[in-house]
Amino acid sequence: MFEVKDRDVTRLKIEPPYLIFLGDTQEKVDAKTGAGLVQWCPEKVLGQTRFKECSVDLGIPDISISNAKLQGVRSLVVGVAPTGGDINPRWLGALVEAAEAGLDVVSGLHCRLEDFPELVAAANASGAKLVNVRTPATNLPVGTGEPRSGKRLLTVGTDCAIGKKYSTLSILKSMRARRLPSDFRATGQTGIMIAGEGVPIDTVVADFIAGAAELVSPANSDEHWDLIEGQGSLFNPSYAGVSMGLLHGSQPDAIVVCHDPSRKFIDTARHIPLPSVAECIDLHLRCARLTNPDVCCVGVCVNTSSLDEDAKQLYLAELSKELGLPCVDPIQDGCDGIVDLMVEKFGSDN
Amino acid sequence: MFEVKDRDVTRLKIEPPYLIFLGDTQEKVDAKTGAGLVQWCPEKVLGQTRFKECSVDLGIPDISISNAKLQGVRSLVVGVAPTGGDINPRWLGALVEAAEAGLDVVSGLHCRLEDFPELVAAANASGAKLVNVRTPATNLPVGTGEPRSGKRLLTVGTDCAIGKKYSTLSILKSMRARRLPSDFRATGQTGIMIAGEGVPIDTVVADFIAGAAELVSPANSDEHWDLIEGQGSLFNPSYAGVSMGLLHGSQPDAIVVCHDPSRKFIDTARHIPLPSVAECIDLHLRCARLTNPDVCCVGVCVNTSSLDEDAKQLYLAELSKELGLPCVDPIQDGCDGIVDLMVEKFGSDN
Repeated sequence: MFEVKDRDVTRLKIEPPYLIFLGDTQEKVDAKTGAGLVQWCPEKVLGQTRFKECSVDLGIPDISISNAKLQGVRSLVVGVAPTGGDINPRWLGALVEAAEAGLDVVSGLHCRLEDFPELVAAANASGAKLVNVRTPATNLPVGTGEPRSGKRLLTVGTDCAIGKKYSTLSILKSMRARRLPSDFRATGQTGIMIAGEGVPIDTVVADFIAGAAELVSPANSDEHWDLIEGQGSLFNPSYAGVSMGLLHGSQPDAIVVCHDPSRKFIDTARHIPLPSVAECIDLHLRCARLTNPDVCCVGVCVNTSSLDEDAKQLYLAELSKELGLPCVDPIQDGCDGIVDLMVEKFGSDN
Repeated sequence: MFEVKDRDVTRLKIEPPYLIFLGDTQEKVDAKTGAGLVQWCPEKVLGQTRFKECSVDLGIPDISISNAKLQGVRSLVVGVAPTGGDINPRWLGALVEAAEAGLDVVSGLHCRLEDFPELVAAANASGAKLVNVRTPATNLPVGTGEPRSGKRLLTVGTDCAIGKKYSTLSILKSMRARRLPSDFRATGQTGIMIAGEGVPIDTVVADFIAGAAELVSPANSDEHWDLIEGQGSLFNPSYAGVSMGLLHGSQPDAIVVCHDPSRKFIDTARHIPLPSVAECIDLHLRCARLTNPDVCCVGVCVNTSSLDEDAKQLYLAELSKELGLPCVDPIQDGCDGIVDLMVEKFGSDN
């Protein structure tokens, strides 16, 4: 029963509120997933649970697993990702305790929670779910390319790992501040934990990438925006297939390009130079027109952390002049400039 | 043991010689796979095996399963694909007999051979392999984009199912006739049966498409050509992710575009017009330059079956003039014109 339930999942669901599990973590960088949840969905996070020897503190209440259920927690989310991406055997007792208490156990690590028989037994006994955020989705449809209602924005990039998730969430923040109807649509592990649902798009079988992307952002009311977390890059020779299927399936009305001016070569293929932002916009629009002929670019999100303040202002101003688009650092300045252009181009009902 | 052997397969291997299983098939169109094998790899096919009531004849010797082993057959290949793509229960006895006799049983159908316990038992007892040509490959690497030695040609298309496998095999035939060193590299079910190996590229997990393509056409001697069977189309909204990863991983030196002038809209998305051949060449070259900056187009393979002789000659002549490339019907005329240009551009050691 349990196995079937897990395998039939297409769009993963994670039930809030969350308790973030930190175990015995010593390095802040290992707790990136937990920190991201506190930053981007604080309303879903009731607290953290840590071993005595844990030196990382996310600045939220400490709640013991035995108290969590009473306080309303529904999911224990593993908020640490040590090198190697495996579950530490020292954590197992705590995860089993959570499952016994009826909390769903959620992990974005490489190993599967089902690989631990004690955990499976505890979950089966209490009815808790084990949620592997990396588990390949099954029963996905083939993409149709049929237009659907609602508006969509997809973040794309001059390379992988260049700020697409952060930029998407920053645009969401700007839109919500103006009460524009919008949702974050997650396609990667941490994004799915933040959104509480989504499809880990890079784990689906190749034939179903576009179909999975269509599922991620279903038809919606005309004024509603889905803000879709991009993956990979059309310019990364390892992962461009994922990006292409996600682009076609998302049918974006608008794209935002993410870029880092300090990166000169593709991160995983140092013999290939990074494209210019203009080239990146042009190829994405050309390919995206297949499923949405009216697609346009509404801005560029730049990671300017490598530039001092003067150099940053100069870079953003020159890029903005070259492209005729708002160019912002989403971390330092937010995405209001981009949302201004979205409202100008697509209107606002508020 | 058996299961592990099967799951560890990355590049599928099918051992010749083949005996083609036709069962009780009544419709020639259902025996397309078998007919393709007889046409494209007659040297691998010893014969056919049929029930009495079978009305299809591939024009090759009838060999009973009990005699096949004695005659040297190593694989029984299911050469029929009935509507629905399932194994007919009436066939099971014959497949079990083949496995008992030590013949590998090979199927490109949707259901898995392992779903039949009698067949698994027979294969385990004799040491025969059950080969599912659609089985998703595992243990694949992520693509690197690193250049590798040898020359590569990839067939691409203005849409899916537009003659890429046929065109690739026709180019192989022309090259072999001139003793140019070349191999057919298969990426789809029937292609893999013809080649005896390959990766069913549309079944791999999205993150590994380019890596699988790199595996399909490994480094080779400088003058050697891999002729790679294309899949999908950058212009098909369902499958373009597969095509993009295959394009980057193949690192083609040359592409050949396949086209059908009678097709006005994308086959699986009738609201999207087919691109022009020029547009198709342009987008493919632009994307392919990421992993091979020197890529060029060496010709167009046109399915002219919808045109009468005059209209065909006019169409091919005008297209050839517009593009400055050889444009041929590979079925009616073969691909000598394309191979002429390949030799002109890339030289020949013969």
